[in-house]
Amino acid sequence: MSETETDRPSVIRPTDAEALRLARNLVRSARSGAIAVVEPESGGFPSVSRVLLGIDVDGAPVILVSALSLHTRALRADRRASLLVGEPGKGDPLAHPRLTVQCDAEEVVRDSAAHSRIRARFLRRHPKSQLYIDFPDFSFFRLKPLRASLNGGFGKAYLLAGEDLAIVSPAIEALAERESRAVDHMNSDHADAVDFYARTHCGAESGGWALVGLDAAGLDLARGDALKRLEYDAPLTDASELRGALKKLYG
Amino acid sequence: MSETETDRPSVIRPTDAEALRLARNLVRSARSGAIAVVEPESGGFPSVSRVLLGIDVDGAPVILVSALSLHTRALRADRRASLLVGEPGKGDPLAHPRLTVQCDAEEVVRDSAAHSRIRARFLRRHPKSQLYIDFPDFSFFRLKPLRASLNGGFGKAYLLAGEDLAIVSPAIEALAERESRAVDHMNSDHADAVDFYARTHCGAESGGWALVGLDAAGLDLARGDALKRLEYDAPLTDASELRGALKKLYG
Repeated sequence: MSETETDRPSVIRPTDAEALRLARNLVRSARSGAIAVVEPESGGFPSVSRVLLGIDVDGAPVILVSALSLHTRALRADRRASLLVGEPGKGDPLAHPRLTVQCDAEEVVRDSAAHSRIRARFLRRHPKSQLYIDFPDFSFFRLKPLRASLNGGFGKAYLLAGEDLAIVSPAIEALAERESRAVDHMNSDHADAVDFYARTHCGAESGGWALVGLDAAGLDLARGDALKRLEYDAPLTDASELRGALKKLYG
Repeated sequence: MSETETDRPSVIRPTDAEALRLARNLVRSARSGAIAVVEPESGGFPSVSRVLLGIDVDGAPVILVSALSLHTRALRADRRASLLVGEPGKGDPLAHPRLTVQCDAEEVVRDSAAHSRIRARFLRRHPKSQLYIDFPDFSFFRLKPLRASLNGGFGKAYLLAGEDLAIVSPAIEALAERESRAVDHMNSDHADAVDFYARTHCGAESGGWALVGLDAAGLDLARGDALKRLEYDAPLTDASELRGALKKLYG
């Protein structure tokens, strides 16, 4: 048994590049998570439930929730949310890395540019949400990270700032504008490259992978249940660098 | 796609026997869960993290946590906790049933009879916890269910009372006293029955199953990562009924 399988948070370690990479990967490749909110009308009782997750182009997690659900009513009354990502998987549940992100939840205004961008990205990541994504009682919330706590396994505990989980680049907007076209183009004309990315950089088995997202920091690859995050060495600073970055990953 | 895969909580259904069974099974067979607490010194921010779970003889979930961890400090300051059980598994994460239990967390006094009972049950369920279960900074908390909310998949939403998750019987104490011996006896002398229980009643593959718990309402069966809950038709009302109940399940 390794040290990690205890619940003992050893001394907090300095947040190095590897911890940042792990934390970003945990949140950016999560299909679902557990969200804790402040239960309405109960004087501050916490309440935790399961939600599907998306990621906005600036790295903020996104949820799609019904007005009929408790978490939606809760977040409309109190924006404070805590998000847990990182599934326990096989073996000791505490041996698997997980990340708690303390967030400020902001509802996304329908018919805004942000809504349309978030909707397209969410839909590619969760194609089955098509059946309800446009229901009038459904809303997106952006969960802006304020701070986070990473339990990286093997006794590795780290504290992160909200900014550590943000995607920062002057090219975010320009890339968001061309994202849908670029994703379609890659899937229809460069399926070999998409498969190479999953196989070579994400250690995945070959076959069936599709690109479902593309932003200034990297790519989202999906096959059925599986979701992989692949980041460039550094965020792109101009949308014109995209082609070169995709080529380099295929090199 | 089924209705369940939406996040739409349909009208709350009346809590029938099937919903009760599902809810009890979710919490009693969970190896880990997400616990939300009220973060100390932050004015009521929720915070959610992953914990290993046990179950006490009255059905109350149990956690083993370090004094160094945030959730322990939180629960010592504010006993309100929310527990989410039911892992997303394969396919759509929202298609899997899950249960949110609102709890009152009570720290278990070390060297009490309750501590020794809870420790023995937890250790059988999580053998690897042996390495830290007796560390001086580790404590058990009992999470007494106050109310719960079941999302049973297929658009089935139910509200439960805390008592719905309780194991109630006059035989609880007498059974607890003989539990360890009875479990050892079953595993060493009746491994065939234990395997039969897992195979026949829990739909599990044959081989490698051990009994890890036994209480007035049923049995806990484990093999590696897997944990199965098997309940009698009705809770035993006297410890002398145990042998007959075990025989009947083998019939």
